[in-house]
Amino acid sequence: MEDTGKRFNPEKLAAFCIDVQEKAGVPREYAEMVTDNLIMANLRGVDTHGVTRLPIYVERVQAGLINGKAAGTIVMENATTAAYDGQNGLGQVVGTKAMQLCLDKAEREGVAIVTANNSNHFGTASYYAMKALDRDMIGMCVTNSPSLMAPWGGKKVFLGTNPIAFAVPAGEEKPFVLDLATSVVARGAVILASKKGDPIPPTWAMNKEGEPTTDAKEALSGALLPLGGHKGFGLAMVIEVLSAVLAAGPFGPHVGELYNNPNTPQACSHFFMAFRIDRFRPVADFKAEMDQMIREVRTEPLAKGFSKIMVAGEPEANTEADRKANGVPLSDAVVSDLTKLGDSVGVSFADYVKS
Amino acid sequence: MEDTGKRFNPEKLAAFCIDVQEKAGVPREYAEMVTDNLIMANLRGVDTHGVTRLPIYVERVQAGLINGKAAGTIVMENATTAAYDGQNGLGQVVGTKAMQLCLDKAEREGVAIVTANNSNHFGTASYYAMKALDRDMIGMCVTNSPSLMAPWGGKKVFLGTNPIAFAVPAGEEKPFVLDLATSVVARGAVILASKKGDPIPPTWAMNKEGEPTTDAKEALSGALLPLGGHKGFGLAMVIEVLSAVLAAGPFGPHVGELYNNPNTPQACSHFFMAFRIDRFRPVADFKAEMDQMIREVRTEPLAKGFSKIMVAGEPEANTEADRKANGVPLSDAVVSDLTKLGDSVGVSFADYVKS
Repeated sequence: MEDTGKRFNPEKLAAFCIDVQEKAGVPREYAEMVTDNLIMANLRGVDTHGVTRLPIYVERVQAGLINGKAAGTIVMENATTAAYDGQNGLGQVVGTKAMQLCLDKAEREGVAIVTANNSNHFGTASYYAMKALDRDMIGMCVTNSPSLMAPWGGKKVFLGTNPIAFAVPAGEEKPFVLDLATSVVARGAVILASKKGDPIPPTWAMNKEGEPTTDAKEALSGALLPLGGHKGFGLAMVIEVLSAVLAAGPFGPHVGELYNNPNTPQACSHFFMAFRIDRFRPVADFKAEMDQMIREVRTEPLAKGFSKIMVAGEPEANTEADRKANGVPLSDAVVSDLTKLGDSVGVSFADYVKS
Repeated sequence: MEDTGKRFNPEKLAAFCIDVQEKAGVPREYAEMVTDNLIMANLRGVDTHGVTRLPIYVERVQAGLINGKAAGTIVMENATTAAYDGQNGLGQVVGTKAMQLCLDKAEREGVAIVTANNSNHFGTASYYAMKALDRDMIGMCVTNSPSLMAPWGGKKVFLGTNPIAFAVPAGEEKPFVLDLATSVVARGAVILASKKGDPIPPTWAMNKEGEPTTDAKEALSGALLPLGGHKGFGLAMVIEVLSAVLAAGPFGPHVGELYNNPNTPQACSHFFMAFRIDRFRPVADFKAEMDQMIREVRTEPLAKGFSKIMVAGEPEANTEADRKANGVPLSDAVVSDLTKLGDSVGVSFADYVKS
């Protein structure tokens, strides 16, 4: 995102997001869950998954396409596992509840898995995986998402850009937090190039005819390419299995869009896993080796064109430190969207964020 | 591998492999475990991980760098988890014992994780994940491996090509079996190009100076590139965490080479996970949706230059059917290596494989 220099206090932004949702009929507790996820994304520099999503969530709640009052319910449960039905609740509410359940089970049993179906866009996957960190556990989360990516060998979108996230505690170093889509790039990068009229690398996407394209507009009516060809498609399909097929949700082409879908719920599915580090070795030893590995990788000799080696989660942690201190930058377009959204439910964005 | 047309009966090949190891002092039961893994790789077309590995395993057992008599032992155990010490045993023995333990725990508890350290090259990772299939479980396996790949931004090898494997049962369709290295290609592909004098794509590897190279020889003294840049390196690092750091084994640069390492054990580490499908939904429903997804993806419209869409595990299953019926092709070089190996312990390869 282009940083225009305008920074917003995250607590004030959060208060706005919570109140807007409450006005739209979302119980305060659930509005807080959604907001915590969005603000965390903005703080960590993942602005595509931050408050920019609030208007579409609220719109879908108001249209009855998301049940803002639903928290989901357990449909099958054992000591180490649960299948959670999201009851078409807000994705962050479903995700937060399901991951909480997973962490409590893992704390008691050593390892746990919880699936969730009938859910919606739930923000960044790493948000849920990171809930494991304070408990000295490793967290994992994957989700399916609407079709954007062609199968390897195919030309029509089938699976989503299905992300995978892992969070691993370190000692003195920042936690290792991986969160990646299984496409080469996010669709947002293609949209941006299209708006600017810039060409895109031929490895990003294909056109409608199934040929690699450098024309961003053509790419948008074609399909994103999976990370590393057949490998990325294989990973995306594993993620579809773990989320949709295991959770008894619809897969790939049968998942609803978040935008431009005024008729049907999304029916996303998620998979959450956590396990205790101390079931395998003392936590202090584990963290010391994490620190050692991170430090050794960081001091490796640099390749041409690089000034630094960073490990997953490090750029985001740096951004978080900066934005916690100096505020979250929002583009004029996002500010305008939030202002309109606030006005529509009688809440003034400008009043909330003024200093 | 170039198929020269010479096919070998897998049972006869197996008998040879078992007897050679026994002559080298490996207990028969363990020799069978190693052999089953190697022959399965050859049957499924993964010839790089087949009987071509037998000579180096036997050489390292004879040199005392692998303890052929060790089976490993549990050092920490709970209902759902175990930390296994491989005691420098043959990788396939450690892997088979650890995965067995994992499956038994998962059958009782729903989900289980077993780590193993002090191990050696264990063949294909998917072999262990696939042990879950008959029990209607999903299996996962990752392992670390000797340094071959530079970190994103670095120019010196740090992590191995750390593979990840998942095995998922289907109904009428073949199981979904994913097994991929986190590098763009295996080092074997670069070695092959180097031998032929062919150029390689600049996306495969970098030279010693950390620049992308199309010269296979330069690439061999440089480093392989991770799948999808920073994404593949992030995945490889998660795999290093799950295997080495969790299992209390050495990471990346501290793992021993399989070849050209006459002094130290490899000290590889592995991670095994399995969970019951019926803890989340009825197995029959799960398998029906797997079948539906596989069938839908297979009938998607094709991209330019493709004649077919296949899902992970499908090409290997087709090869397996062919090779079970018609035998395993071995190159003259492999036949020569096995013949020499057999002669060194008083076992005639030609006698074992004659029809």
